[in-house]
Amino acid sequence: MEFKVSKELIQQLEEHIVNKNDKELEVLLNDLHHADIAEILDELDFDEATYIFRVLDSDKTAEILLELEDDLRENILSRLSPKEIAEELDELETNDAADIIGELSQEIKAEVISEMLDVEHAKDIVDLLRYDENSAGGLMGKELVKVNENWNVLTCVKEMRIQAENVSRVHSIYVVDDENRLKGRLSLKDLLTTSTKTQIGDIYIRKLNFVNVDTEDVEVARIMQKYDLEAIPVVDELGRLVGRITIDDIVDVIKDEADKDYQLAAGITQDVESNDSVLELTKARLPWLLIGMVIEIVASFVLKGNEEIFKLHSTLIIFVPLLSATAGNIGVQASAIVVQGLANGTLKEFSRAYFTKEITVSMISGSIISLLLLGYHSIMYQQYLVGFAISISMIVVILFAATLGTLVPLFLHKNKIDPAIATGPFITTTNDVFGIMLYFGVAKLILGV
Amino acid sequence: MEFKVSKELIQQLEEHIVNKNDKELEVLLNDLHHADIAEILDELDFDEATYIFRVLDSDKTAEILLELEDDLRENILSRLSPKEIAEELDELETNDAADIIGELSQEIKAEVISEMLDVEHAKDIVDLLRYDENSAGGLMGKELVKVNENWNVLTCVKEMRIQAENVSRVHSIYVVDDENRLKGRLSLKDLLTTSTKTQIGDIYIRKLNFVNVDTEDVEVARIMQKYDLEAIPVVDELGRLVGRITIDDIVDVIKDEADKDYQLAAGITQDVESNDSVLELTKARLPWLLIGMVIEIVASFVLKGNEEIFKLHSTLIIFVPLLSATAGNIGVQASAIVVQGLANGTLKEFSRAYFTKEITVSMISGSIISLLLLGYHSIMYQQYLVGFAISISMIVVILFAATLGTLVPLFLHKNKIDPAIATGPFITTTNDVFGIMLYFGVAKLILGV
Repeated sequence: MEFKVSKELIQQLEEHIVNKNDKELEVLLNDLHHADIAEILDELDFDEATYIFRVLDSDKTAEILLELEDDLRENILSRLSPKEIAEELDELETNDAADIIGELSQEIKAEVISEMLDVEHAKDIVDLLRYDENSAGGLMGKELVKVNENWNVLTCVKEMRIQAENVSRVHSIYVVDDENRLKGRLSLKDLLTTSTKTQIGDIYIRKLNFVNVDTEDVEVARIMQKYDLEAIPVVDELGRLVGRITIDDIVDVIKDEADKDYQLAAGITQDVESNDSVLELTKARLPWLLIGMVIEIVASFVLKGNEEIFKLHSTLIIFVPLLSATAGNIGVQASAIVVQGLANGTLKEFSRAYFTKEITVSMISGSIISLLLLGYHSIMYQQYLVGFAISISMIVVILFAATLGTLVPLFLHKNKIDPAIATGPFITTTNDVFGIMLYFGVAKLILGV
Repeated sequence: MEFKVSKELIQQLEEHIVNKNDKELEVLLNDLHHADIAEILDELDFDEATYIFRVLDSDKTAEILLELEDDLRENILSRLSPKEIAEELDELETNDAADIIGELSQEIKAEVISEMLDVEHAKDIVDLLRYDENSAGGLMGKELVKVNENWNVLTCVKEMRIQAENVSRVHSIYVVDDENRLKGRLSLKDLLTTSTKTQIGDIYIRKLNFVNVDTEDVEVARIMQKYDLEAIPVVDELGRLVGRITIDDIVDVIKDEADKDYQLAAGITQDVESNDSVLELTKARLPWLLIGMVIEIVASFVLKGNEEIFKLHSTLIIFVPLLSATAGNIGVQASAIVVQGLANGTLKEFSRAYFTKEITVSMISGSIISLLLLGYHSIMYQQYLVGFAISISMIVVILFAATLGTLVPLFLHKNKIDPAIATGPFITTTNDVFGIMLYFGVAKLILGV
């Protein structure tokens, strides 16, 4: 039941654009959801997309604008006059409008705001612009339904009808005092089931979750997830109700946060998408490659320093890739579980019990791998002492990698650095170097070189 | 403003438990949110947690049950009689109750259901049990507010008051025909702003998103995210309205999906958490370690086969770790971007444009790394031809790794295998082996061995 962009539709649209059949374009697109139209525009080139954009109504285009990919939105905005942009913004909710304005240059921003027809709306948007975009203030919208604790249900419903005119979805009905300080919320259910003469003060729910304008976005996400909230009110320093955040904006925060961890784990230092430019992609990827290179140069020194022993026992060197890959894998597994534990709160800090468990898991895996390796080496090369040296080194390296994989993310977390770094190339390459050192160290000891 | 479990609180509770001060326990906990109480219980041992659980009211404990960590929930359930479990389920929404029942053994399940007081509720729950847990049917709840298209606003409000008694949150008001077939939805705003005599058929919104009972959960998540929905109705094969899915359950699906990708990328084959048992953790981690080991044994053959050349030019071998680490990193970066592109829909299938971009990015990174390496090698070892061979191999390996990193996830996706596997040990170790092969191949060519 989900809409999919078809090649035929794109062709049809392109023909209509060439022939300037505005009516047919409207007919084709008018029934579609704005998110679907955005998907279509993303498939067209900039000129075609802009053409369609101008054909459609501004109540539709405003919503489309929000869903477009960054480069297309930027391109379309650059072709619109401040007055045209202002018309789009008049149609949008305050937080979405503020996001769009945030992408404009300083001078156009001022012009656009001065062109907006709805002055109250413009004021609300300007108000939102002063908050940090990663704070509750930066996420919140101004659209909400609030009632005074001193009203009765009838006044309340009357007032709500007026307020609801400007609000697309009624999430919660907030209760404030005469100073606009947040006191609680009114349940829609209670409103539907209570007599109209009841005083709001008697039926509102006093306990409710709220955040401050400067609460961090990830903190807001955690609170909304934990308490299963669909909207959360935002108060200022004086406890006055200034806005609300809805779950759909938080879903984006949650997803971005998970994507960021995933990208860090893959050795990508900043948020990129597959349609970003070559320059952006390279900038996001090169740093870890270079850091990895520097760390691995240390590995080359270690190997150079051990040339004697692997000239003597040549099978030692051929297992170096196996050893470092295993160390890398164990380290990444260990740290990924710590990173996720920290993210979802099941792990808070270093605990001996957890560490013991991790070491046990690694010991089991390490022993199995070492035994298999010992068997394989004995059969293939019949140098039992060397095989023994390799197996023992393997266990040592695995335990070391597990320890590093567990402790590094905990250390990073304690020092307020994103622990997901530790699931990336950093931990693999570091394990490589230490792994190779330990390997030859243990081998020398056992083989008595 | 978020609640945090303090050591003092835990101590206080433990004292009250020892002294059986049930009253004090209630006083301490009664004002807390059920999610917070669950957090507290998770900090206590099983006996203490069960004690508190029995002290609290069943309307509270039912919600707490949902928030507990798996092992504690399992433990508490095992200590409750079927009748006690039934009391908890009577308090829960149908989909949550079905989730809890799903964790019980077959025989206890039947007993619990027969003990439930609310027969309608029990029927709804039993109905939900037959759906696959990863489908819309498995996610949906039965609680919803629906009105008939033939009613007027007044009847509608009256009926809604009755229905709302059993629904904790009114998300949407669905409109059905006499056969219970989903026709559309009614906006709360319209309801607040329309005259009471208006016919529902005249004001309801005909276009609305819905899913079928067998739509996959990740598909539901994508639709709800794309269209910014807070709830979505679920219909059966005949188009009849059978339930609704709310965004808070979808947030879990989105998070689980992201976590799964992250874990696959870290070489963990099944969903585990830091508090899982040693056995579960080992089972989730050992497979990739073993696969990695087998692949790396191939690498040992390649090295063995090239012993001649690295005995001749010993610096070749010491750069093997650098080379394989770089190949691994490039491969993982390339595939992570493809995996995320596939997940968020910016990338749909193989496109020449995207592939060209990836190769360009890798060429730039590869050239920079190779030049640095050439300079470093020339200064350190003064064997210019060997240095040249290493640098050229490096570029070849990087291009190969980028190609593999791009194509493998696309191939997996096309064959309905989770492409996130390709960001894990699989791609790193495979790149290792091919990287080492190419490295010596190119080196032999250049050095003429």
